Amino acid sequence: MKRAILLILLFFTKMSFSQTTDTGISETIIALEKAALEKWNQGDPGGYLNLSADDVTYFDPYTDHRLDGLEALKIYYEPVKGQIHVSRYEMLNPKVTATNTMAVLTFNLHSYAGDNVSKWNCTEVYRLEPNGQWKIVQTHWSFIKPLSQ
Amino acid sequence: MKRAILLILLFFTKMSFSQTTDTGISETIIALEKAALEKWNQGDPGGYLNLSADDVTYFDPYTDHRLDGLEALKIYYEPVKGQIHVSRYEMLNPKVTATNTMAVLTFNLHSYAGDNVSKWNCTEVYRLEPNGQWKIVQTHWSFIKPLSQ
Repeated sequence: MKRAILLILLFFTKMSFSQTTDTGISETIIALEKAALEKWNQGDPGGYLNLSADDVTYFDPYTDHRLDGLEALKIYYEPVKGQIHVSRYEMLNPKVTATNTMAVLTFNLHSYAGDNVSKWNCTEVYRLEPNGQWKIVQTHWSFIKPLSQ
Repeated sequence: MKRAILLILLFFTKMSFSQTTDTGISETIIALEKAALEKWNQGDPGGYLNLSADDVTYFDPYTDHRLDGLEALKIYYEPVKGQIHVSRYEMLNPKVTATNTMAVLTFNLHSYAGDNVSKWNCTEVYRLEPNGQWKIVQTHWSFIKPLSQ
């Protein structure tokens, strides 16, 4: 019976804490983000939509207030389809700060379209869902050093 | 012994999942944020510095890349001391999405200084530290609808 208790303790302790310092979380989340971003860069917002949770919240420089929920994001992204053509990007200094069930990815992004470059700050908060998938619950895109309001 | 196993299960289950839907987390985090913001509005960045973790990451519209770490944030905020005079603010629609050990607060902010109003998107990611305090691990401030880069 002592063995049973030890196994239970081990299981829950592992579940609660083991992923906190797991570099695997960072690699997983950066890979998910890059896959969605690379679809976006070809005019397909579907990668981000599939990666976002039903209760996602969203900011970017074109929204006049926070968007709440996946349905609102789908409507917002609808006119974007086919309109983005990014030829090259640099995800600068991605960093993941994680607990066992939530993680925040931050990075700067340089997106190139022909001779133009747009420069971004990005925050993506991911939550580990009961089915074991990481989903975005908060997206915040902003320009680096915009002129003003 | 069965009772011991049940108690262990109860303890770890509660620790792992109970706070996910706890409105107490939302209230706690919004109160922490407002207290820091109200100090900021009087020219004192100390509220945010005390609330930020050693490994905090930070974006705002004046940074040309992400700031990493509390020491970098302290240096960045040093010239701000005494320079902010916000007479009134509206924290619009604050929302907290939480797991047991990490939570993301988002809101729009209208800050009034005399006749001027500045309008902001804000993301704050909080982590529950081993000492039971919530600390900010990621801050992202951006203007609502800035002109351009």
